[in-house]
Formats: sequence, structure tokens, C-alpha cells
Amino acid sequence: MNTEKITSVHNARVKAWNALHTKKGRDEAHLFLVEGEHLVEEALKENILKTLIIDRECPFDFDHIIEVTPEIMKKISQNVSAVHMIGVCEIKEKKVGDADRVILLDGVQDPGNLGTMIRTAVSFGFDAVYCSNDTCDLYNDKVIRSTQGALFHIPIIRKDLSGHITALRNDGFRIVATTLEHSKTMSEIPNEGRLAFIFGNEGNGVSKAIQQASDERLRIEMEGFESLNVAVAAGIIMYHYQRNL
Amino acid sequence: MNTEKITSVHNARVKAWNALHTKKGRDEAHLFLVEGEHLVEEALKENILKTLIIDRECPFDFDHIIEVTPEIMKKISQNVSAVHMIGVCEIKEKKVGDADRVILLDGVQDPGNLGTMIRTAVSFGFDAVYCSNDTCDLYNDKVIRSTQGALFHIPIIRKDLSGHITALRNDGFRIVATTLEHSKTMSEIPNEGRLAFIFGNEGNGVSKAIQQASDERLRIEMEGFESLNVAVAAGIIMYHYQRNL
Repeated sequence: MNTEKITSVHNARVKAWNALHTKKGRDEAHLFLVEGEHLVEEALKENILKTLIIDRECPFDFDHIIEVTPEIMKKISQNVSAVHMIGVCEIKEKKVGDADRVILLDGVQDPGNLGTMIRTAVSFGFDAVYCSNDTCDLYNDKVIRSTQGALFHIPIIRKDLSGHITALRNDGFRIVATTLEHSKTMSEIPNEGRLAFIFGNEGNGVSKAIQQASDERLRIEMEGFESLNVAVAAGIIMYHYQRNL
Repeated sequence: MNTEKITSVHNARVKAWNALHTKKGRDEAHLFLVEGEHLVEEALKENILKTLIIDRECPFDFDHIIEVTPEIMKKISQNVSAVHMIGVCEIKEKKVGDADRVILLDGVQDPGNLGTMIRTAVSFGFDAVYCSNDTCDLYNDKVIRSTQGALFHIPIIRKDLSGHITALRNDGFRIVATTLEHSKTMSEIPNEGRLAFIFGNEGNGVSKAIQQASDERLRIEMEGFESLNVAVAAGIIMYHYQRNL
């Protein structure tokens, strides 16, 4: 085990790590940060952990550890409560294998919503998450925190959605856009075959062009006239369309 | 119409409004803030709007308007994007009427989760939300934003949950705690009679004492072994247990 020590907050490494809090910094370095033991362990299992930053004894074996002061840890961490372990991880898209349940996100803006939808997709055995180019960045701290580690268990891929809808349809997927207008209820769209569900932006929903490119329009039946948070809507639909329910 | 003008950020009113960003300040003044036209209009309809703070022309009639500079507006607002209208509202609990679907929140900590669950409860026609004393404050800016105005459409009441469970049971409610352990699935608990669902803290779930005080334990069937975000779990359960589904 090879442990370096950094004691100055002005150290160039500290600056470089903090640059990973911005999308630009992450894209340039092809790295992102995860905070706390649970996420670090998940990153380790996935073989993407490059450097482990700690401010106390390390509970597991890893060959590239950098010890820092609690002050430096606090400077790097985005958590409100104290964190003692931050992992620097490589950005690496997982490959999509055999898939028959996927979701497409069309301009989801809120990091908490994106992270929550990824977590739900893993819980209900979905096979992939495709994000439009204007969906918020996956490696944002708040997204990662909201996934609770689920981001390591599913391929999450940035795509031009219009083009990808065609590709999915050619692969036998039925493309289902979620929207209130001219839509069917869940009991009218059977849970069979390959299914791709599209969820839209918090304010505007699924864009018109993407709705028109879809095979079906789906809504959630409700008593009131309120709208649902997109992550809640996605949860209800993914629950219903689990493979083996 | 009686319009005052404030031009100094050091004005005592500005300080008093900013104090409403803390729970202590809200509790003392018995007031809270809502930002943006949509929420202000909802507050107006509910007859709880006391003062309207604006930095441009007011699009509707109201008899207590205070005009401020954009600089002051920015100082009061908690929104990332610019807001031109903030309402100072009276804290006033709605009364629970005839109820047969209610939710109980046992230590929900995240403001976004609380707000989202309130929004979902209104969408699915639930009649009341009861919050334990350690659930986060309802009048937190982030909670209000996440409700999207739904907080004005349902009674939300702070209660000691143990005592309230007994009261609900005496009123003929079946008390259903959500938990993975020793639990039934939704198909095993029929959607009939009066039902009260309990959702728990993000990290720890429903507390043991509250679970033991319940009549049923309910889980959401899923393929994976992941957990769900509590607002997503609540959404799936409230969707399923709508009165008229």
C-alpha cells in the first residue's frame, strides 16, 4: 500500500479535485468524485476507483490512497455532514446487454430527479437509462447522492433521443411517451414485449417532436388535476411495467 | 390599492422577511413566504396572503402591496432564477373533513421528499397528511417549491404519531406501515375501507415502535434488492390505493 499525505489546502491536487465539481472539469479529466464509504466501495467493486482520499484510517485495501487533513476533506466535500472518504473515479459507460425494459429521459433538469429515477430503474430491474443531451449531468454530486450507488448497476448513456428511438424500434421496442394528452392508461398498454418509456422535462414534459416519434402515449390515472413529480411518475410506471410483476 | 415602496436593503421589513427563511422566524411571526406568481395566486385564493412584495407591476388586485427594488427582491428570494413576486402568508392549518385515505410521515428529513409526497397526495385524492414532530418543517422554501402549490389543497398537520394512530384506528382506519420486513404486498391488502399509510425516514424507514403500533406491514414488490426513494415508494402506494382506481 502506497499512502501519500497532503496537508496544505493550496496543494495542486486539492485544486484539481475541486475542479471535478464542475461538468467542464469532469469532462476534461474524465473523472468524477463519490463521497462516503458506501459509494466508494461500490466504485471499487466496479473497478473504476482511481484514487482514494481519506482523513482517517482506511477500512479496506487499496493501492492508491492519499491521506489529507479534515480541513482539506471539508474543502473537497459537498456534503453537509462530515465525510471521511472521497473516491476519484473514472468515467466509464457500462455496455447495454440484452435489454427489454429501458427508459429515455428527455431534458430532465433536476439532479435529484435524475438520481432518483436511476435508483428506481435498478430497483425494478430495468436494463438501461438513455439521457438526452440536455438532461442534467450524471456526475453532478447531487445526482450521484440521489442514486444511492445505483448508478454503478445500470448502463446510463447520453444519446440524441430522436435517432435512438429509431434504433430501439428497429430492435423491436415499443416506444411509450408519458404525457397527459391523447394518452392511454396503464391498463390499456400491456406489459409485454420490449418497452421503452420516455419521461420529460419537469416544466414542459416530453417534447412534441419526441411524442410524435413514439408509438404510444401513456398517462397515470388520477383523481385530481394536479401533475406529478417526474420521478414519482417514473416510479409508478416502472413499478407497473416490471418484467415479472 | 395601497402601495408602499421600499428602496433600501437595510429596511427593517426586509430583515423581517428574511427571518422567515428560518423555522424559528416563521414560528415566531406565524408567517411564511411563497415565491412566484403561481404560488402567490394560490395563497390569495386560500385567503392567507397578508402582504405582496413585487418589483414590477402587479398583475392582479390586492390591497397590501409593497414595491421593492430588484436588488431587495434578490436578497429575499431563495430561487436561483429571478422572481418578481413574493407573498407573505399566514400559517394556518386546514381542517380535516371526511377522510378515508391519509398518510402519516414518520421523520421524513428531506424537504424535496416532503414536498413531493404532499403533491402526490393531492394528485391521488388523499385527504390529509400527518407529520411527526421530527419530520422537516413544512414551510421551508424547498418543501413549498416541491409541492408546486399542492400544500394549499390538503390539510397538513403536525402530530405525535403514536397517539394519532390510536385516534385514527378508533375512527375505523386500518393502519398500514411501509417496511420490507414481515410485510405483505399490495395485492394482499385490499383497497377498501379507511386506510392510513405510514412512510418513514430516508435512512431508517418507519420506526420500530410505529411499525408495532400498526395493523399491517406493506412492501413494494421489486426485482432488485435496491431500496426506493421514500417519495417514489409513497407515489406507487398512493397510486394503487386511490379511492376510485
